[in-house]
Amino acid sequence: MSEPVFQRLALIGIGLIGASIALATRRAGLAGHIAVTSRTAATLARAEELKLGDSYHGEPAAATRDADCVILCAPVGASGAIAEAIAPALKPGAIVSDVGSVKAAVITAVQPHIPEGVHFVPAHPVAGTEYSGPDAGFAELFDGRWTILTPPAGSDPAAVARLTRLWQGLGANVEVMAAEHHDLVLAITSHVPHLIAYNIVGTAAHLETVTRSEVMKFAAGGFRDFTRIAASDPTMWRDVFLNNREAVLEMLGRFMEDLTALQRMIRYSEGDKLFDLFTRTREIRRGIIAAGQETAVPDFGRPHGKPDEPRT
Amino acid sequence: MSEPVFQRLALIGIGLIGASIALATRRAGLAGHIAVTSRTAATLARAEELKLGDSYHGEPAAATRDADCVILCAPVGASGAIAEAIAPALKPGAIVSDVGSVKAAVITAVQPHIPEGVHFVPAHPVAGTEYSGPDAGFAELFDGRWTILTPPAGSDPAAVARLTRLWQGLGANVEVMAAEHHDLVLAITSHVPHLIAYNIVGTAAHLETVTRSEVMKFAAGGFRDFTRIAASDPTMWRDVFLNNREAVLEMLGRFMEDLTALQRMIRYSEGDKLFDLFTRTREIRRGIIAAGQETAVPDFGRPHGKPDEPRT
Repeated sequence: MSEPVFQRLALIGIGLIGASIALATRRAGLAGHIAVTSRTAATLARAEELKLGDSYHGEPAAATRDADCVILCAPVGASGAIAEAIAPALKPGAIVSDVGSVKAAVITAVQPHIPEGVHFVPAHPVAGTEYSGPDAGFAELFDGRWTILTPPAGSDPAAVARLTRLWQGLGANVEVMAAEHHDLVLAITSHVPHLIAYNIVGTAAHLETVTRSEVMKFAAGGFRDFTRIAASDPTMWRDVFLNNREAVLEMLGRFMEDLTALQRMIRYSEGDKLFDLFTRTREIRRGIIAAGQETAVPDFGRPHGKPDEPRT
Repeated sequence: MSEPVFQRLALIGIGLIGASIALATRRAGLAGHIAVTSRTAATLARAEELKLGDSYHGEPAAATRDADCVILCAPVGASGAIAEAIAPALKPGAIVSDVGSVKAAVITAVQPHIPEGVHFVPAHPVAGTEYSGPDAGFAELFDGRWTILTPPAGSDPAAVARLTRLWQGLGANVEVMAAEHHDLVLAITSHVPHLIAYNIVGTAAHLETVTRSEVMKFAAGGFRDFTRIAASDPTMWRDVFLNNREAVLEMLGRFMEDLTALQRMIRYSEGDKLFDLFTRTREIRRGIIAAGQETAVPDFGRPHGKPDEPRT
């Protein structure tokens, strides 16, 4: 157990990320008290059944009162309204943070509501699964993954250091960068990949010549990898694209240019160019494995023909 | 152990698929003798070290002699030349098959070389990993996966039934369809997904504003799933795109149209349309899991923060 970093940690929203923070905080003894809130009564009740917190609140302001750290764990589109709701309850010296996948837009939405004497240190844990809700949370989610902090210019270094200690205690590596740069990095490493995955699953669903049943049966050829991320939370991802529009459109434009070039190589049978690209892309995966962000297990270690799988 | 389906099975090529066929054939006792060949001396020597076969041959024709089943397990671009090389050694009544990811082009390349009295039954096991070479093979690769047979019109039903028995013995479910339909189905379930994965990894590698090290560190946001399939064998995939050009261009065109529509939704902040698409795509994944072609383990069951992963 570590020394508690905060006396009272308030989690505004208790889905996959909020629940995982609660469990990892408990695992390492990082907070004296965890106050949980959800705007959905059923979710709050479920969080209580799962014993994720020490107190449960229907109103964000009630959870926030007396908290020395408040983390917004809701879709980014809700950030501004939450900040407005909790502002009157924030105590001097408290740290407000979030877990949004987009940072510049969140700063724009939240910063105006932060009272004098309260520190706003935005954060983004780059970790997740395709499942959502409090039952999807687990204490190991952040272990070995990166959390990016994007403190606005002039942030209190002590507040940044304290939030860094929290995230390290939750198992994560911490990196600090400018919000705008974060949004560009995540556009290519996360947002555009999600968009593409959603898109190809949509394309496959609309074909007249290939049935849905065929798509599902023969998905092992590669398609099913895309369906995992295309099963991610729709509200969260809608908000990501609406709030990181410029960076996503920039990276998507590059992706489409490159894809058009590939299309042309196929049309004109330029095998050497295809081979060159396909060879270079292998290195990137090796780098990700070396960076500890992926395992080298073939085919994601999927079971082949386990007895519980239907056979025809 | 099953009754052997063939007395002598010749495998022309001993990479991931050839080696897995050898191991699964042995597991179920499906052949009296497995003759292995590779055009690369080092690969053949390695196959012998791994004891994948009963005899080892530098020349495809030598492995083919007396075989009642010959399976081409090489990249599809090599199919025609191999068929030409083995044709004089094929014995009457033998079955020639393959494992190519493209079927119409393989039929065009191979059929003219098949002697009178020999049966050509093309096949495609829809299974694989991102690794290649004889060491990548494992006996369970085909368990619960689908193998598609695409016998040309007028094929001998007895030959098709015999090859079906082999594939079922190897662990696969078997489906029969026309080669042209196969190529269309696989274009959307496998070829275009691979192309997109190769493409986004390439796009990420060329950015000036985001470093390669950043791409690797923050890959857990979604990108790393794409790198798995973008690490697949370059020769095999070059040949797939060159040999299934029409179907790939057709499906790629649809994908790009749909992506352009998504791009527009983002530009004009059409959140409801984004939400609708993101909701519908979840169902497809559920269908793939229900079809036994995927497991429901979150995040592909990746370990989070295992001790052997580097931490900073």
